[in-house]
Amino acid sequence: MKRSFLILFSLLFSFVCPVCFGQENIAKRPEQLLSPEVKADNTVVFRLYAPEAKSVALLGNWMDANSPGGNKREMEKGANGVWTVEQPAMARDLFIYNFLLDGVRISDPLNVYQIRDVGNIFNYFITHGGQAELYKNHVVPHGTLSKRWYASSLNAAERRLSVYTPPGYEAGKQKYPVLYLLHGMGGDEEAWPTLGRVCQIMDNLIAAGRIVPMIVVMPNGHTANSAAPGYSERGEYPVTFASPDVGSGAMESTFMEVVAFTEKNYRVKKDKKHRAIAGLSMGGSHSLFIAAANAGTFDYVGLFSAAFRINDKIKQAVYDDFPANLQRQKEKGYRLYWIGMGKTDFLYQVGADYRKRLDEMGMSYSYYESEGGHTWSNWRDYLVKFSEQLFR
Amino acid sequence: MKRSFLILFSLLFSFVCPVCFGQENIAKRPEQLLSPEVKADNTVVFRLYAPEAKSVALLGNWMDANSPGGNKREMEKGANGVWTVEQPAMARDLFIYNFLLDGVRISDPLNVYQIRDVGNIFNYFITHGGQAELYKNHVVPHGTLSKRWYASSLNAAERRLSVYTPPGYEAGKQKYPVLYLLHGMGGDEEAWPTLGRVCQIMDNLIAAGRIVPMIVVMPNGHTANSAAPGYSERGEYPVTFASPDVGSGAMESTFMEVVAFTEKNYRVKKDKKHRAIAGLSMGGSHSLFIAAANAGTFDYVGLFSAAFRINDKIKQAVYDDFPANLQRQKEKGYRLYWIGMGKTDFLYQVGADYRKRLDEMGMSYSYYESEGGHTWSNWRDYLVKFSEQLFR
Repeated sequence: MKRSFLILFSLLFSFVCPVCFGQENIAKRPEQLLSPEVKADNTVVFRLYAPEAKSVALLGNWMDANSPGGNKREMEKGANGVWTVEQPAMARDLFIYNFLLDGVRISDPLNVYQIRDVGNIFNYFITHGGQAELYKNHVVPHGTLSKRWYASSLNAAERRLSVYTPPGYEAGKQKYPVLYLLHGMGGDEEAWPTLGRVCQIMDNLIAAGRIVPMIVVMPNGHTANSAAPGYSERGEYPVTFASPDVGSGAMESTFMEVVAFTEKNYRVKKDKKHRAIAGLSMGGSHSLFIAAANAGTFDYVGLFSAAFRINDKIKQAVYDDFPANLQRQKEKGYRLYWIGMGKTDFLYQVGADYRKRLDEMGMSYSYYESEGGHTWSNWRDYLVKFSEQLFR
Repeated sequence: MKRSFLILFSLLFSFVCPVCFGQENIAKRPEQLLSPEVKADNTVVFRLYAPEAKSVALLGNWMDANSPGGNKREMEKGANGVWTVEQPAMARDLFIYNFLLDGVRISDPLNVYQIRDVGNIFNYFITHGGQAELYKNHVVPHGTLSKRWYASSLNAAERRLSVYTPPGYEAGKQKYPVLYLLHGMGGDEEAWPTLGRVCQIMDNLIAAGRIVPMIVVMPNGHTANSAAPGYSERGEYPVTFASPDVGSGAMESTFMEVVAFTEKNYRVKKDKKHRAIAGLSMGGSHSLFIAAANAGTFDYVGLFSAAFRINDKIKQAVYDDFPANLQRQKEKGYRLYWIGMGKTDFLYQVGADYRKRLDEMGMSYSYYESEGGHTWSNWRDYLVKFSEQLFR
């Protein structure tokens, strides 16, 4: 077959050539450029080829809006039409960013690594060393991430959730403990596996012997919809952020359906000692109300930058009975009630008020106060710190 | 808690406000605009707010590079700074597109629905009616999509694959047939579940009673790497397209490891009558060599716009023994040898030559010739047509 090299050439050509190949690829990626370039010392260089542009800037989640430069850095145009900006050695973490091209916020066309956060798409990159290594894929045994659907009383349709099962789950017979891990108001069942790097964190911590192998169940906390954008049967445009369900109590009141589904469909240990629940922000609010309403169900509770009651106009037993529920939770006992909060979090005072309430009723908890605010950087770190204490 | 409304407001504000909130969201999405807007008659309107831009164009995979306008449509600027273009009633399908903003190819910032195709990110949308409905999420029982890893002799590391299990799999005891579904040179284990809409197609065809419920296993056909970009332990930048593995025979020679993994880890029927293999382009090449080298293993073979031998300089038993293997496959028998090809596919002649070879040796096959070329539009349709004939 003399034709074989021709075929190969055609296939390659079709990828590289922008306009001449009309069959599937519709444009060319400038192969020679790299953006972002994360150097060994965690200096990061960003590049955009835009010879016709009037201005290009970098927007990064590590920038402080109150700093002199604000939350953007102007990029400089080189003679070759490439705009560049370098960020001095950055922290060890996962970062998100966008460009501002002639006033339009865009994704970096050279970086295919992107994360959706409800109605926004961000590029991401991970620097080297320390904590950042927990967020990367390494050569270790890998668990499975499944996107599943369960029947719920909430919607006419099934609801979607993400499930992490640890390495060896499918081939084994062992029963596992379960961490129920809830997202914030801006998230859905894809938030923890993407922005939260749950698979990488779990795989790496298990491989290092730092945590007990566990199943992690990540449901969708927006009860007005059945799934993340792109998987909902509504197929809605535009993707909206605030749902009527927020603060309605629907998630908290029906959460045990998720537990029942998990315990029916997975090989899990079905007792308090082997159940943990944790969430960030709105998910922290969910977690504390669920854990109290189901006193004696969870031995481990994690509140990451937790909100408290989000809408106090709505009447729901899960909220109204909270003082009595919390008292009952205290009496039935638990092993760990872990609270993480950043010093500059806008929910800091909410957290302080909540801890005061716990103090007044003599309910014990562990408190970890970090730098920073209401960020995924903190939530990934809280997940590591919390999960290391589970099921011991 | 009088504070609760304040909290809600803060959370909402943090999302809507671009610069004033430095904690996590780094920019604002213009909520009032919609792009793309797919109207009831499948007219589609694209919009971009770019008051400072000099030129904005739309690049779509439905455009013909050889038509007068080429493969782009200029967009028109309105007094409000919004650039717009309308596409007259489009076909019933999933389409991908990008914008060209002052010469830079970008994703539509208003459309969070994106698909990665190796080194490129495209926005997508789905029009209404007919075949397009098969590609959407509907209120039907949903199967599970799992991202798993299996030990392979190919890499020091585990290799990643995508597995679709039909609704009811986990809770039931039934054994299922398996379709092994392979991607093309530009793909990886995420290609069929994203561009190929496998979960939606399977869920919808099963709900309509048009196919036998089956498991679909989608491995990564690039043996030089262990996983799709973003999941490889190499964490490589830039994402590269052509791997040294293409045409090396490594995928074909080790493929039975995927079958063994599947049959060990899933409740499947382990005989020829319940095994199908199909692939597109490079994956079609893989499928035909694998099916022949393992004569008597698969009762169903699907070749979608198939390539043939991609690199004939490489010596491999799986290629060198092909004539004898194919003869043995013919003798051992099979139920369906299905070939789909588009009239304008650049591999059309390769396919014609291959059919001639089959004719000459008296090996029966079904041939379906469609309009169009080497496109996902055809491959999704071929998957529907092929899967309807399986395991009957």
